[in-house]
Amino acid sequence: MIATRGILERVRLGQLSVDEALEQLRELSIEDLGYARIDHDRVRRRGFAEVVYCEGKTPEQSAEILARLADRGESNVLGTRANVETFELLKVTVPDAEYHPVARAIVIRRGPARQIGSVLVLAAGTSDLRVAEEAALTASVMGSHVERIYDVGVAGLHRLLRELDRIRAARVVIVVAGMEGALMSVVAGLIDKPVIGVPTSVGYGAQLHGLTPMLGMLTSCVPGSSVVNIDNGFGAGYLAHMINELGEGAHGHRED
Amino acid sequence: MIATRGILERVRLGQLSVDEALEQLRELSIEDLGYARIDHDRVRRRGFAEVVYCEGKTPEQSAEILARLADRGESNVLGTRANVETFELLKVTVPDAEYHPVARAIVIRRGPARQIGSVLVLAAGTSDLRVAEEAALTASVMGSHVERIYDVGVAGLHRLLRELDRIRAARVVIVVAGMEGALMSVVAGLIDKPVIGVPTSVGYGAQLHGLTPMLGMLTSCVPGSSVVNIDNGFGAGYLAHMINELGEGAHGHRED
Amino acid sequence: MIATRGILERVRLGQLSVDEALEQLRELSIEDLGYARIDHDRVRRRGFAEVVYCEGKTPEQSAEILARLADRGESNVLGTRANVETFELLKVTVPDAEYHPVARAIVIRRGPARQIGSVLVLAAGTSDLRVAEEAALTASVMGSHVERIYDVGVAGLHRLLRELDRIRAARVVIVVAGMEGALMSVVAGLIDKPVIGVPTSVGYGAQLHGLTPMLGMLTSCVPGSSVVNIDNGFGAGYLAHMINELGEGAHGHRED
Amino acid sequence: MIATRGILERVRLGQLSVDEALEQLRELSIEDLGYARIDHDRVRRRGFAEVVYCEGKTPEQSAEILARLADRGESNVLGTRANVETFELLKVTVPDAEYHPVARAIVIRRGPARQIGSVLVLAAGTSDLRVAEEAALTASVMGSHVERIYDVGVAGLHRLLRELDRIRAARVVIVVAGMEGALMSVVAGLIDKPVIGVPTSVGYGAQLHGLTPMLGMLTSCVPGSSVVNIDNGFGAGYLAHMINELGEGAHGHRED
Amino acid sequence: MIATRGILERVRLGQLSVDEALEQLRELSIEDLGYARIDHDRVRRRGFAEVVYCEGKTPEQSAEILARLADRGESNVLGTRANVETFELLKVTVPDAEYHPVARAIVIRRGPARQIGSVLVLAAGTSDLRVAEEAALTASVMGSHVERIYDVGVAGLHRLLRELDRIRAARVVIVVAGMEGALMSVVAGLIDKPVIGVPTSVGYGAQLHGLTPMLGMLTSCVPGSSVVNIDNGFGAGYLAHMINELGEGAHGHRED
Amino acid sequence: MIATRGILERVRLGQLSVDEALEQLRELSIEDLGYARIDHDRVRRRGFAEVVYCEGKTPEQSAEILARLADRGESNVLGTRANVETFELLKVTVPDAEYHPVARAIVIRRGPARQIGSVLVLAAGTSDLRVAEEAALTASVMGSHVERIYDVGVAGLHRLLRELDRIRAARVVIVVAGMEGALMSVVAGLIDKPVIGVPTSVGYGAQLHGLTPMLGMLTSCVPGSSVVNIDNGFGAGYLAHMINELGEGAHGHRED
Amino acid sequence: MIATRGILERVRLGQLSVDEALEQLRELSIEDLGYARIDHDRVRRRGFAEVVYCEGKTPEQSAEILARLADRGESNVLGTRANVETFELLKVTVPDAEYHPVARAIVIRRGPARQIGSVLVLAAGTSDLRVAEEAALTASVMGSHVERIYDVGVAGLHRLLRELDRIRAARVVIVVAGMEGALMSVVAGLIDKPVIGVPTSVGYGAQLHGLTPMLGMLTSCVPGSSVVNIDNGFGAGYLAHMINELGEGAHGHRED
Amino acid sequence: MIATRGILERVRLGQLSVDEALEQLRELSIEDLGYARIDHDRVRRRGFAEVVYCEGKTPEQSAEILARLADRGESNVLGTRANVETFELLKVTVPDAEYHPVARAIVIRRGPARQIGSVLVLAAGTSDLRVAEEAALTASVMGSHVERIYDVGVAGLHRLLRELDRIRAARVVIVVAGMEGALMSVVAGLIDKPVIGVPTSVGYGAQLHGLTPMLGMLTSCVPGSSVVNIDNGFGAGYLAHMINELGEGAHGHRED
Repeated sequence: MIATRGILERVRLGQLSVDEALEQLRELSIEDLGYARIDHDRVRRRGFAEVVYCEGKTPEQSAEILARLADRGESNVLGTRANVETFELLKVTVPDAEYHPVARAIVIRRGPARQIGSVLVLAAGTSDLRVAEEAALTASVMGSHVERIYDVGVAGLHRLLRELDRIRAARVVIVVAGMEGALMSVVAGLIDKPVIGVPTSVGYGAQLHGLTPMLGMLTSCVPGSSVVNIDNGFGAGYLAHMINELGEGAHGHRED
Repeated sequence: MIATRGILERVRLGQLSVDEALEQLRELSIEDLGYARIDHDRVRRRGFAEVVYCEGKTPEQSAEILARLADRGESNVLGTRANVETFELLKVTVPDAEYHPVARAIVIRRGPARQIGSVLVLAAGTSDLRVAEEAALTASVMGSHVERIYDVGVAGLHRLLRELDRIRAARVVIVVAGMEGALMSVVAGLIDKPVIGVPTSVGYGAQLHGLTPMLGMLTSCVPGSSVVNIDNGFGAGYLAHMINELGEGAHGHRED
Repeated sequence: MIATRGILERVRLGQLSVDEALEQLRELSIEDLGYARIDHDRVRRRGFAEVVYCEGKTPEQSAEILARLADRGESNVLGTRANVETFELLKVTVPDAEYHPVARAIVIRRGPARQIGSVLVLAAGTSDLRVAEEAALTASVMGSHVERIYDVGVAGLHRLLRELDRIRAARVVIVVAGMEGALMSVVAGLIDKPVIGVPTSVGYGAQLHGLTPMLGMLTSCVPGSSVVNIDNGFGAGYLAHMINELGEGAHGHRED
Repeated sequence: MIATRGILERVRLGQLSVDEALEQLRELSIEDLGYARIDHDRVRRRGFAEVVYCEGKTPEQSAEILARLADRGESNVLGTRANVETFELLKVTVPDAEYHPVARAIVIRRGPARQIGSVLVLAAGTSDLRVAEEAALTASVMGSHVERIYDVGVAGLHRLLRELDRIRAARVVIVVAGMEGALMSVVAGLIDKPVIGVPTSVGYGAQLHGLTPMLGMLTSCVPGSSVVNIDNGFGAGYLAHMINELGEGAHGHRED
Repeated sequence: MIATRGILERVRLGQLSVDEALEQLRELSIEDLGYARIDHDRVRRRGFAEVVYCEGKTPEQSAEILARLADRGESNVLGTRANVETFELLKVTVPDAEYHPVARAIVIRRGPARQIGSVLVLAAGTSDLRVAEEAALTASVMGSHVERIYDVGVAGLHRLLRELDRIRAARVVIVVAGMEGALMSVVAGLIDKPVIGVPTSVGYGAQLHGLTPMLGMLTSCVPGSSVVNIDNGFGAGYLAHMINELGEGAHGHRED
Repeated sequence: MIATRGILERVRLGQLSVDEALEQLRELSIEDLGYARIDHDRVRRRGFAEVVYCEGKTPEQSAEILARLADRGESNVLGTRANVETFELLKVTVPDAEYHPVARAIVIRRGPARQIGSVLVLAAGTSDLRVAEEAALTASVMGSHVERIYDVGVAGLHRLLRELDRIRAARVVIVVAGMEGALMSVVAGLIDKPVIGVPTSVGYGAQLHGLTPMLGMLTSCVPGSSVVNIDNGFGAGYLAHMINELGEGAHGHRED
Repeated sequence: MIATRGILERVRLGQLSVDEALEQLRELSIEDLGYARIDHDRVRRRGFAEVVYCEGKTPEQSAEILARLADRGESNVLGTRANVETFELLKVTVPDAEYHPVARAIVIRRGPARQIGSVLVLAAGTSDLRVAEEAALTASVMGSHVERIYDVGVAGLHRLLRELDRIRAARVVIVVAGMEGALMSVVAGLIDKPVIGVPTSVGYGAQLHGLTPMLGMLTSCVPGSSVVNIDNGFGAGYLAHMINELGEGAHGHRED
Repeated sequence: MIATRGILERVRLGQLSVDEALEQLRELSIEDLGYARIDHDRVRRRGFAEVVYCEGKTPEQSAEILARLADRGESNVLGTRANVETFELLKVTVPDAEYHPVARAIVIRRGPARQIGSVLVLAAGTSDLRVAEEAALTASVMGSHVERIYDVGVAGLHRLLRELDRIRAARVVIVVAGMEGALMSVVAGLIDKPVIGVPTSVGYGAQLHGLTPMLGMLTSCVPGSSVVNIDNGFGAGYLAHMINELGEGAHGHRED
């Protein structure tokens, strides 16, 4: 946090009183809209702007927050679980905003167009695509090169095995699977890279809206994997990019 | 039920009053020990003697019930979840009783020594052997030829795939698996025979004492399989033998 | 897998390089639609074409996959949980497709019209018919002769007992029951054939959308039964046919 | 509450100040041991003395509370879930106390030795006897004539059906069953008397320590039944006696 | 079952062959509509006609079953969870059918207009009235005199206590309560009559759609009560009438 | 309860018979609308009028109950989970009623306009505002001065820490949080005032409709906090005002 | 935090470099034992020393942490869930440590001996005393005057009602209850002070180790209450003291 | 897989028949002990030898498998959840085996002694050390440099914040936390590196043996984190090393 250190130094030099300093620090990074406090410091602190989870917010709220983030121009901006109404509102002020209907996401490109390393997204079935696309889009918007292999569930193992070379070539693999989620264990057992499991709510009855694959992935007999929330393609894509970035070589931890 | 029809015929012929007939029917097949009613009719009705689940009974009760069933000499006798104490008591009156410590089962051989078709028991890990052995022993005691392939979990898929010929040669396959239970889906996807999944309580935390693989097997993305209770090797072996027996060709349904 | 062996032999004879062989193997059996990979090898591997679970797919996707499977002409084609919209789309290209509204299923008849052995579907109540019909249709489309006995719940035990002869005549019995699912235990106790329990979500409150009969069936005090997912008529019908087929006598395991 | 009305009348007559009356009412019916307040009014209010649930109390506490209740001599005294140590302590001061080991209960007979109507206790299996005996003993100690039919689970339906006359002769039936608890529905469907279901924790895995039969009994497809807590033989026996007593004809509601 | 015995006697007298007898027994009491088997024997066996649970049936199915039951004219007919559409259909053939909108029930009066003993229905809150009215209507249609006391939850205990005389005057009390369901324990502690608890799904969050009061009522610290399924006013009213009937004195068990 | 004591005194003085007194006591404080019994005594007993939970009541019922409470004029009147339809009906008879759309609440101001101490409402995210506003409005209507700090979730800890002075200045703090609810522990660890946690149903998948933050808040590693039901802003606001009132100094317990 | 401000001021005055200041702040308040970091700042920040939860720590670890806290001499020291072994070890270095066996707690008195306001602890049954005593001891050690009323469950409501004056006299009430936990709602409905519910694990079966009363208390129909974790007497006592302290009048928020 | 390719090449060159090749491939990498199949190929396939989970295996089985893996000498060998008895048996044949009692793990050092990058293990409380040490040891044995910061739960946030520099210096962070697990969200919000959450079973009541922090971590409001099973220190350490290794720069995917 360069700015923070700067303010502290000015305190040390007597250029700023303690009270003034406190006030400046508060104003620095948070934009208060009343119903929301935009955390502009997040790019510096975490490497990517605050991502807007649009569910539970009104389209007006979502659109305004996204527009404010875009204004800063520091990194790409992502809105997840966004509906078309939000997008239409946003386009008025941010004409270059994009809407990705399968992933239900809004993207505003403001960051560098890098495409590092590679993240692979595997989906067990056609019904898992919404979640898989959310993951793929998130990693891509953050700066990762993303590969996709879809509909390779364990019911037809050879569909998976014939893609083994592509799977092994990735730096980190996201496995999106509903039903019992067995695909994650099978994939993790075949490779030596981190695997992120995303259980989906695809299924019925004993599938328990995704709890069953979530529990199954957590108790996988294969190490080297970890799990995010049900249908949380965003979380998987975000983490995958973080890991992918580590593999980029000369990567130190963020400034300050 | 031959005996039942006989009694009915004697009613028709006037050789037996309705009340006498009712009494005879009641006495025919049930031996009342006070704390238990032994269902001797079960051999005729279901093809195998009543199996004694010894947990929750005193060793004295279990031993007596087993001895009474052996006395009839109509089929092999099986006691599951039996401890050594029960076995020691039983040996006094039934010297040829056998104890199988891994399966925790008692066997008294009284039926024909046939070994039909083949039932295959697959176990995912070394820790699942107790349940796998209970399944294997049950099917075997009922008259099935049983094959075993153990420690072939999906963490090392090639261990499983190299046994594919043996797996495909079986008439019915039992898959015993703890952790997330993914093995059942993988196996069912590779063959065209009925698969019986037995989730085990092997694991911890999110494995929920076997609920997780049980739910996972029930929501499997692969058809052709069904599931029995957690750790229920007995139920799986019993059902596998029933299915195996169907495959013996000239098999009609049991008499009367 | 005849084709697979052929390719290997050509490798041995030097007629095919290893790389060419790998490529051919990949193309052989999987048709990639982008959003789905059709597993045409499944008829050979598992005895029946891939069944299309239409829920979670768009009508366009479902209709296209069904049409592609029908094109192969190797076996009957089945689409489950299909809506009328999918059917209307499909009829344009596959005019002889059938829609079964109670079972919510689409059938395209391309396989042999055999009707082997017999599968019996029992339903506890009128509200369970959707699931029962899905089971009956699945087994029938796969080639089994199917009998139906509906509305024979344990509240009126004599309704069930008067059908005992028909029940005992079946090779495998499917019991479809909601509420507490007690019918499965009662039926399994009366016969010596495999029983497949299908818990349904019919009921309310403590019925927990089908979890209660599912758990009850899994803990049944009667061996010889196993359980599929809640409302999974398809899975029960599929497995019942597999078992029924075993009873056809001269049945070996599938080629390759 | 005769005493209560008496005190109120004396207030009306000016024989007692309001404050004096309040004090007297408080002292009337509750004996305070510090760690427990014995509710001696319960015989008058509810027809039977407070029953002592001994689990979670020290043997000394249980023995003292039981002795105090016996001192009143107004009705039989019952201690449930009692261990032998409690009984040994109690015998010193109450030599005629009885210990029932299967039911794990202590009885001190102080009430009339009536045996009204009839309560029938059915148990599905031998392992359910502890709970069944607690139910039978409770109803008996409260004044009901009790019949017992044990080991009549649905796995052998004819064991149950041959006892149908005895079952129909009872005024109220308690069904004690573990595993999936299907016996309750079957019994309730056969008779026209109230049925009280007692799920037991007998079973494993998906039986969930009794939750499965409890849920199953609650969602029974047969009306005319209700359910008490898992293993709660006491509660079932208590309620059964209450209902049985209603059937005694000239029974009005308790005085005052 | 008089008819059953008659047929058996005719077998004994040679007036009927065994096969003919079997056929006659089957036809006697069950009317098969294809999708449903009406159990006309239930009046004789259980004292009241089969009650039609209309949820999950089409209006056409419900209306036809209700009309068939009414045709027999043996007892009042009750349809629960019925919508107006079913009622409109039914009125065409059964003009004197009644619709009770709060209870969502259809009644056709064909039995005797007796009003025995008394059943009291207590409801904790205004939101519980649908369930309470279903209970009250059921008991009333079966022949019980029913009293109602509504909105007497424990938040205002004096509302309940001031009705204590009416509560104590009832032969059996139904307590309908959502939220945490504490009312059942409080009421049961005040009286000496059987209490039937009906948990409702009224509430949110930790109320878990009625599971919380259901579990709470089952673990009540007060004996003399039992529980039916969540929102199951019908089951409570049915059982209450059964118990109430026992209190009518000269009540033996039903014929045969 | 002044009125209660008055009636008792008149009994003592012979001015009132016991029966007359009982009748008067009953009429005193409860207004019976048939479907509801309004507890007018609650202002005296608990310091605030009965609050009307409008969900599950018809708009007509809610509006009438609110109007009756307003008629008494003894304290402010609050209706929670109220829809606009209820408000429109109410306005006809109570023109000064207010509707608060975010909190979904109706307020009728009849009590004193005091604003004591201070209650602080913290909300983790923008999606939690409905619950937070319900809490804030409830405490305010009851007489507390309320501060609000919204969108200060732990993802951006500095947003919270910069408000530490305001947080420490409050007498009692309400923390409204969905997702994992971690905010409550963090806040409780920073201050020495009572913290009331309100888990919300904001989130998806493993969030389990609010159960996850509810369980998390209950197992918080920080003492000094307690929890109310999921989304229960009303309950938190009510309790916060009670605690705030205690801090007002010269506060004794309510009369009689 | 006076010390913190002091260090900052010295930075402003140039008496301390930024790096030195950071180091001093770190050392100020945390004592690092390797396996534990004692938070000595907690007295200042939260008004009471860190309380040691001894379960899961070795007796050596617990004893050492307690001794270090006692050394500071700033407030009373409390160790919960402590066994006798820990106490024996501690007594060697802290001879005036006390052990409270029912509450399983260790107390070292170092703070002022004040006894403010009053906290009332109500327990439903004798089996709940361990939890009730933990609550009572905690509040007392922190400086509250504590009253106790035990064994006043709702099964005998008059036991509770006769203590109403004492209950209303308290500033805050803790209700400790197992089984279904109905006591909390009843008590909260009778008074106008904050009620803290502590569900206990006393009970069996559907009581679910305390989950049932926990859920019940959370969904209580009576506002003015909140809930802590199952068996968490400590948490209830801690919070009760905090609230009680607010009622002490001239209480501002803690220094700095 | 070099060896695999070699065998295929020899097939191409006619040096090996297809059948011989299949046999060789099978024998290559799996050592069959009867009860276990050791997967020696795993070092090549996944970069580290098979790790032995000793729970559920006999000490003899565990010791033999560990010894066999050590014999290969290809990488360090790890046995988790190992007891001392296993270690004593193992030492006879592998004298340089080490036992780590807190982590309950056995290590045999056979791989290179590298210590790459850095993995940080944070533990919330002293009771979480067993799990934290298992994580730290696993990552270390696999080749990562490991840092530890223990007892920094959110109850004393400054204990955590003062270590922020060390936390930000790590390449990947493991957060081990019981109770409500809030620490993971707080840490993830402060840094820009991958965070792996390990919920522990430390806590009681609503902590549900670790399910509560597990669910909480999965629903964390902070992206960049993922979760492994409850108490699964091993899985976290394994994954952390994998990610750490990615950060080592010139890391391609494993050969073949």
